Amino acid sequence: MTSPHVLVLFGASGDLAKRKLFPGLFRLHCSGLLPDVRIIGTGRHSPGSDEEFRASVEPEDAGEGWAEFAEGVRFVVSSADDGDELAAAVEQAEKELGGGDVRRLLYLSVPPSAMEPMIAMLDATGLAQRAHLVLEKPFGSDLDSARSLNRAVLGTFAEDDVFRIDHFLGKESVQNILALRFGNGLMEPVWNARHVAYVQIDVPEEIGIEGRASFMESTGTFRDMISTHLFQLLGFVALEPPPALDAGALHERKAEVFGAVRPLDPERVVFGQYAGYRDEDGVDDDSRVETFVAIEAFVDNPRWEGVPFLLRTGKCLGATRRTITLGFREPPLAMFAGETGGAPNELVLELTDSPRISLDIRTKTPGPDLALEPHTLSVRFGGEDSLEAYEKLLLDAMAGDHTLFTSTREVERLWELCDPVLADPPTAQVYEPGSWGPQEALDLAGERGWRLPG
Amino acid sequence: MTSPHVLVLFGASGDLAKRKLFPGLFRLHCSGLLPDVRIIGTGRHSPGSDEEFRASVEPEDAGEGWAEFAEGVRFVVSSADDGDELAAAVEQAEKELGGGDVRRLLYLSVPPSAMEPMIAMLDATGLAQRAHLVLEKPFGSDLDSARSLNRAVLGTFAEDDVFRIDHFLGKESVQNILALRFGNGLMEPVWNARHVAYVQIDVPEEIGIEGRASFMESTGTFRDMISTHLFQLLGFVALEPPPALDAGALHERKAEVFGAVRPLDPERVVFGQYAGYRDEDGVDDDSRVETFVAIEAFVDNPRWEGVPFLLRTGKCLGATRRTITLGFREPPLAMFAGETGGAPNELVLELTDSPRISLDIRTKTPGPDLALEPHTLSVRFGGEDSLEAYEKLLLDAMAGDHTLFTSTREVERLWELCDPVLADPPTAQVYEPGSWGPQEALDLAGERGWRLPG
Repeated sequence: MTSPHVLVLFGASGDLAKRKLFPGLFRLHCSGLLPDVRIIGTGRHSPGSDEEFRASVEPEDAGEGWAEFAEGVRFVVSSADDGDELAAAVEQAEKELGGGDVRRLLYLSVPPSAMEPMIAMLDATGLAQRAHLVLEKPFGSDLDSARSLNRAVLGTFAEDDVFRIDHFLGKESVQNILALRFGNGLMEPVWNARHVAYVQIDVPEEIGIEGRASFMESTGTFRDMISTHLFQLLGFVALEPPPALDAGALHERKAEVFGAVRPLDPERVVFGQYAGYRDEDGVDDDSRVETFVAIEAFVDNPRWEGVPFLLRTGKCLGATRRTITLGFREPPLAMFAGETGGAPNELVLELTDSPRISLDIRTKTPGPDLALEPHTLSVRFGGEDSLEAYEKLLLDAMAGDHTLFTSTREVERLWELCDPVLADPPTAQVYEPGSWGPQEALDLAGERGWRLPG
Repeated sequence: MTSPHVLVLFGASGDLAKRKLFPGLFRLHCSGLLPDVRIIGTGRHSPGSDEEFRASVEPEDAGEGWAEFAEGVRFVVSSADDGDELAAAVEQAEKELGGGDVRRLLYLSVPPSAMEPMIAMLDATGLAQRAHLVLEKPFGSDLDSARSLNRAVLGTFAEDDVFRIDHFLGKESVQNILALRFGNGLMEPVWNARHVAYVQIDVPEEIGIEGRASFMESTGTFRDMISTHLFQLLGFVALEPPPALDAGALHERKAEVFGAVRPLDPERVVFGQYAGYRDEDGVDDDSRVETFVAIEAFVDNPRWEGVPFLLRTGKCLGATRRTITLGFREPPLAMFAGETGGAPNELVLELTDSPRISLDIRTKTPGPDLALEPHTLSVRFGGEDSLEAYEKLLLDAMAGDHTLFTSTREVERLWELCDPVLADPPTAQVYEPGSWGPQEALDLAGERGWRLPG
């Protein structure tokens, strides 16, 4: 069982804490998965009494168990300049937990600019001792700023005590990429360029910016999604088989993949901006920020030589999906008369909370001719027993399991790949809301096209 | 379009003609797939007038189109000693069809003992001219008798004009083996001993002998099923990729497979007899005839080195199925803690009239651990557009397409493999009706067991 923990949530009055962290911690508590904890929310402005703070983060459907859970929750004011009261509260909580092997989990849900001063405070007050540090992305905004942040973090914390959250990686279905590849005798033999013709990693969203104009204007979709979530998915799809599914081996293998990604071809990077974006509240009238990105990447190693990895994400698109598609090569000889039976063999992983795996195959068309027609084998599974991404990642950070977090080496290498695009970004093409992005992005996928929903 | 045909059905008053051939021909007529035909039933005993014959073969649900179809149907008495009236009737029918390129299809649905004299008559009367000969199994009862029959057949007909029907091969789903292997980029790469651990070809039947005691007593299940249907399925599963899906290439490839089958190990051939069989009407009180067979075969070529092909069939078993299962090897390294996630990856082809393909895979168990659990991807398809096996095979025989028929070389090689078992058969072990056969047969499949229905 994981040690007792004092959880310190910086940015505890924020949106993420209310929407994800407190509900997640409460569900873990109810399902008996949470170790013995005290939770201290902190920030510069007091939300009032502890009771008022607890009420402000109570999930709507909390029900009976909440009162018991909330007893272990309080709020303490702190800032980058003053952490003394917080440090005292943490020590007090540790005593309540019985001292001894109690660990600290310091969760920094704060803007990038606030991170370095905060880390200096954690160092100065001794809060950093016996602590795991959890960082929310963005991990810097380019290679230089990421290096600076990493220097500050690693000046105070050991790499082993740092947990950079990419909540995409907490999804059950991302771990299913590993289960599918390495738990099935059938999959790994065909998981390479000899048999795979292309990979598509597609994360379109139907919603627009939903009031987060300042975030979009300052960050953009390429920084927010491509340099993090989508490249991480690529890493899990493309990695060489590790000797074990432990954190060290997986980080090593993912870093090798990112190291082998060919510098992005500017001609194969498409930026888009949905029509109407400039009219949103808080958006500059002549904003050039991209709300859509599609790119083609290559992993220049023997396993993936010549296989295009197409990555796409954006706002105001035709559907909301998180889909990984592996398209298999055509059989070496076209033996069947006439039609080829529709789409090629595609293995599709839907990374929803109720994940779906499907496989398009071709079978004989019923009737006198030996012709082909397409069919889809599929299964949907998961559901109630699944952990929400933040629940999984909070548990792992407390247990000290780095498997689903992002290493310093990965972060810096991904910025190295992304910096040239940010230095000289392509013009964002306007696209209609509800479409699939600019024509240039559709063209990236060539004749086969992007995998459609359904 | 296929030439006009005179179809001559020997054994036209028999069970097969009523149950399969006339209904099949009528459905082909209704769906417009049948060329212009005249159908002459023949046999030693007249069923009465043509009208009476037509009524005797009318399907129960024939409906409106039957009258038109039945106009082209008549009955003529013939025997091995006297085919003159039949020959005259065929010539008359050919005139009605306009002469010229009219072909004859001679369908011999007669006991093995009647075949050779009948062929002599076809030769003597000239009926064999411009004719395709269709033979129903058994094609002999051992290697010697098969050779004798083949000599007689090929003394009168060219190999190209001989169509040995194995109705299993007319099933849509058997052709789906070819579609699956050669129409999908994903399948052929894993279709070999490196990735496949075992193959099971399982054709159990719930029914008993259903009054066919004399057939079972004289033939037995090994001759009836193993030397024909089940080995033919093995041939389609195991064959090397042909340069094209034409008859010549497929027969060549299947014959190569049968040539590479290792002589059967008597220790790995299990005969069974269901309890109560000896009490059936017409069965000898101390009959030793097998109503059940299970064998292990090996194909000694590079593709299948060391892969057991398990074949099983019998009467009074737990379910009726026609199932081909490919079991894939375990991944090289057991990376996942604890359970292996149940059954290995198995690809299952259900060869029913509404075929089903399913694939067992393992995915991540929802929840905090990276463990595996089994799931099945599946699809059922086909149905109304499918041709019944006899319909397909009748059309092919008229069109001169040998793809789904059995060649002389295959027949003789299969008897060569089966003769030693027939010369020194194992004792039939008694098994309970409704079971899965004798324990020895269950043991053949080892720990993994036979694939269960569902």
